[in-house]
Amino acid sequence: MSTFVVIGGDAAGMSAASKAKRDDPDLDVVVFEAGEWVSYGACGLPYYVKGEIQSLDDLVSVTSEEFREQRDIDLRTNHEVISIDPDDRTVTARGEDEVVQAYDQLLVSTGAAAVEPPIDGLDRNGVYTLGSMSDGRDLREYVSRARTDGDLHQPDRGPACQFLENCNGPVGIVGGGYIGIEMAEALAANDFEVHLFQRGGRILKSFSEATSEAIGDHLAEQNVAVNLNTEVEGLAGGEVVEAVVTESGRTPVEMVLVGTGVSPRTDIAEEAGIELGETGAIAADAYRETNLPDVYAAGDCAEAEHVVTGEAGYVPLALTANRHGRAVGRTIAGNPTRGGGVAGTAAVKAFEVEAARTGVLDGREARRAGFDPITETIDTKSRAGYYPEGGTVRVTLTADRESGRVLGGSLVSEYGEGAVHRSHALVGAVTEGVTLGKLSNYDLAYAPPFNTTWDPVLTAAKVLDGKR
Amino acid sequence: MSTFVVIGGDAAGMSAASKAKRDDPDLDVVVFEAGEWVSYGACGLPYYVKGEIQSLDDLVSVTSEEFREQRDIDLRTNHEVISIDPDDRTVTARGEDEVVQAYDQLLVSTGAAAVEPPIDGLDRNGVYTLGSMSDGRDLREYVSRARTDGDLHQPDRGPACQFLENCNGPVGIVGGGYIGIEMAEALAANDFEVHLFQRGGRILKSFSEATSEAIGDHLAEQNVAVNLNTEVEGLAGGEVVEAVVTESGRTPVEMVLVGTGVSPRTDIAEEAGIELGETGAIAADAYRETNLPDVYAAGDCAEAEHVVTGEAGYVPLALTANRHGRAVGRTIAGNPTRGGGVAGTAAVKAFEVEAARTGVLDGREARRAGFDPITETIDTKSRAGYYPEGGTVRVTLTADRESGRVLGGSLVSEYGEGAVHRSHALVGAVTEGVTLGKLSNYDLAYAPPFNTTWDPVLTAAKVLDGKR
Repeated sequence: MSTFVVIGGDAAGMSAASKAKRDDPDLDVVVFEAGEWVSYGACGLPYYVKGEIQSLDDLVSVTSEEFREQRDIDLRTNHEVISIDPDDRTVTARGEDEVVQAYDQLLVSTGAAAVEPPIDGLDRNGVYTLGSMSDGRDLREYVSRARTDGDLHQPDRGPACQFLENCNGPVGIVGGGYIGIEMAEALAANDFEVHLFQRGGRILKSFSEATSEAIGDHLAEQNVAVNLNTEVEGLAGGEVVEAVVTESGRTPVEMVLVGTGVSPRTDIAEEAGIELGETGAIAADAYRETNLPDVYAAGDCAEAEHVVTGEAGYVPLALTANRHGRAVGRTIAGNPTRGGGVAGTAAVKAFEVEAARTGVLDGREARRAGFDPITETIDTKSRAGYYPEGGTVRVTLTADRESGRVLGGSLVSEYGEGAVHRSHALVGAVTEGVTLGKLSNYDLAYAPPFNTTWDPVLTAAKVLDGKR
Repeated sequence: MSTFVVIGGDAAGMSAASKAKRDDPDLDVVVFEAGEWVSYGACGLPYYVKGEIQSLDDLVSVTSEEFREQRDIDLRTNHEVISIDPDDRTVTARGEDEVVQAYDQLLVSTGAAAVEPPIDGLDRNGVYTLGSMSDGRDLREYVSRARTDGDLHQPDRGPACQFLENCNGPVGIVGGGYIGIEMAEALAANDFEVHLFQRGGRILKSFSEATSEAIGDHLAEQNVAVNLNTEVEGLAGGEVVEAVVTESGRTPVEMVLVGTGVSPRTDIAEEAGIELGETGAIAADAYRETNLPDVYAAGDCAEAEHVVTGEAGYVPLALTANRHGRAVGRTIAGNPTRGGGVAGTAAVKAFEVEAARTGVLDGREARRAGFDPITETIDTKSRAGYYPEGGTVRVTLTADRESGRVLGGSLVSEYGEGAVHRSHALVGAVTEGVTLGKLSNYDLAYAPPFNTTWDPVLTAAKVLDGKR
C-alpha cells in the first residue's frame, strides 16, 4: 500500500487528496495543515468582513470531519510541517507532539503569505492583513465593533464622511490590488471613510490602464480617497495605529489594512532541495512534479506555465490551485494528468463595477516573449442601444502586430453587465493562439438584452485588426 | 468606375454597402430596398411591442438620410427588385416607375420571410406575424389599444387572468421559437392571458432538452399556458379571429401571433440562375460568392458553412448577416475577406431567464457529421455558494466520445446570471475544435460574485470528460 502525503490543506492540497483517494481507494492519504481550517474560500473573506456572509463556516466547502469520515483522508489540522527529508522520504510535523510521516509521493501545497512591505509600524494594533480565516475573523470583529461602539468613531469627519450619516473610520488601505479594492468596498459599505494608498501610478496594475482608470474613477465616485504615486513611509501611532505617513503628509486613521500582495511559502521546500524558479516560487513540470522524484508542488507556492509566453510564471489564484491539485491527485492515482497552463486570468468586483483580465497586456512582457504588441481600447454599449438599462463595456485588447495573435485582454463594465463572463471568450483566444481576424468572425451569442449585434469583444478585435 | 449594387437594405446589405464605400470611395454603391426602413434591428421588435422601447425609430441604427448624405450611398427605398439579368449584369427594380440598373458586382441580401403554416384562417383580422417594422407597428397598436379599450377585453377570465388585476386577452401564439417566446413575454407583460401552441414536444428545439425544459417551466411560472405536442389545425372566427383550433379543442382568443420560423427569400435569385443549397437558401463560398461570378449572397437569404460539421447550414441570424455583409464589402473594395463560418449560436431572454446555445447538440446531426456524440447536463450555482443572491446555471455539453472534441453547448440561468455571456467560452471551443480535457483546464476568470471556483462551463467539461 502506498502513502500520499500532502503539506497544506487548502485548495490545491485538499483537491489533490480528495481526487487521489477517490480514484484509488487503496491509497493512504495523509494531509498536514498548520492551521485549523481546511478547504476554505479565502476569496470570500472580503464579503464576510463586509457582512454579506454571516459565518466563516459558510466559506468552508468541505469540513475537516467530512474529509476524515466521508472521504477517508487522514487529515491532521494544527500540524505544521517543519521539514522534508527526501532521502528517507519522510516529513516531520509539529502538532501537540512531533510526528515523522513516511511518504511514497508528496505534494507541497504550502500556499502563500502576505508580503510585509518595508515600512515602520506594522506591529501596531489596528494594522491588519487579509489572508487567513483568522485575519477575516479579526477584521469582521473590528468592523462590527466600530458599527456599534461610538468611541471608535473619529470626531473629525473626513471627505467621505460628509456624505454619510453615521460615519466610521477613517481607515487606510495600503495597496491597490484585489484585496485592497475588495476591502475598500467592504469597509465603505460599513460607512468607513476609506483612504487607499497605491505606490504606483494606477490601481490593479495587472489590468489594462483603461481598466484601472475606470475602476479608479468609480472608487472616487464611491467616496474612496485614492492616493496614487503615494509610497507609504510608515504607520504612526502609539500602541494603536493613528496615521498613515507618506511623503505628502499624515492621514489620520484608526485602522490600516495592508494588502501588498503575497509571496510563496517555500522555506521547507527549499531546505529539502526542491528547486525554485526565477519567480521565487517552486518550479514544477506540466505534471506539477518538482526536481525531486515523486515530489509535486501545486497552488500558491508554485509556478505554472503561461499559455501565451510558454514561460514559468507566478499567478497565485484559486482556480489554478484547484485545477493543479486535482491533476496531481489523478496522477498519484495512476492516471498521469497535466494541470494545464495559466493565462493570468483574474476577476474583481469593486462596488458597482466588475473587471477581468487575461493573457499578456504588458508591452515589455510581450516583447520579451518575442511579440510586437499593439493595443486598443474601445467602449461599447453592454446591451443593444435601444434596450432598456444596460451600461458600457470597455475592452482593451493586445495582439501581436505581425501575426495578429491575441495576446491578452482586459474588460470592465457595470456589475451585472458581463465584463467578467465575456472575458471567457478571450481566455479561449489567448489559450488557442487565435488571431484577431478569426476572433472577430466568431459566431458569439447575440440578443438585444445581452449585447450589441457585434459583442464588445468582437468589436474590439475588429478595431484592433484594422490597426495592424 | 465600378458599380456595386445591393438588393435589400437591412443588416447584410447595408453593412456591405457601407464597408465597400468606406474602403473604396471611388465605388458607386446603389442599394434597392423594397420597403421604407433600412438597417433596423428586427431583434428589438418584441421589446417595442412590449413597450420597453418607445419608438420604432430607436431600432434604426443608421437612417436613410445618413446613408445617403454621410455615407454617399445611392439608397433607393420603396424599390423592389423584380429581376436580375446576369448576362447583361443588370437588375430591374420597381418603385414609382421601373428602373434598370447596371452592376459590376452584385450582392443579394433579400432576407427571409415568415413561414406561413398550412392552417386555415391566417387571413382573419387579429392574426399577426412579426418580421418587419410594420408588423411591429401593428402589434404595438394592438397592445396599446387593448390596454386602453375595455371592449377588447374578454369577459371570461382564463387561467392567467385570475392573477392579474386588469387582464387583457386571451391571445394565442403559434410556435415556440425565439419570436414565440419573446412575444409571450411582451404580451404577458401587458397583462394578456397567453396561450402558446407548440407542435413538437418542447419549445426552443434547437437548444438542449434540459434548456427547453427549464424555460418551459419558467413560462408556466409566469402563467403562460404552454401547450406542447399540440398542432394547430386552424384559426376560427369570422372577420376577426376568435379561437385557436387544435386536436384537443378550441381555445378562445382575440388575437394570434404566428411565429413558425422564416424561410429565405430566393425567388429572384433562383430565376436568375443563382444556385440554392440543400437547405433551400442561396449557396455561397467562403467569400460569399455564388455560382455566378461577381454575384454575392449574404444574410438571411443565404447558407453559411458550419464550423463544426463543415457543411452548409441555414441559420438566419443578425450577427452573421452583419459579419458576412461586412466581409463582402471588404471583398468588393479589393480586399478579399472571408466572413467566417457559423456555429449556430443563438441567445434568448424569456421573462426572468436567459439562454444560449452553440454548435451541434442534436445527436443525429452529430452522427451524420461523423461524430459519436455524448451529452451531459449539470446544474451549478451562478456565484460562489456563500455569495449573496445568484442562481443556477444549467449547462448541457455535447462532445465526440472518441476524440473528446466539444461539439456544442446549451446554457440557461436566471436573467443576469450569465448563461449567455458564459456561452462565449463554448463558441470558441466549438470553433477551434477544443477537447473537453483542454477546455476543463482553461484558466477562466473567477471571483465569488461571478462564479464558483470552477465556472459552470469548466465543471460541465470535467464531468462530461469523465463519462468518456
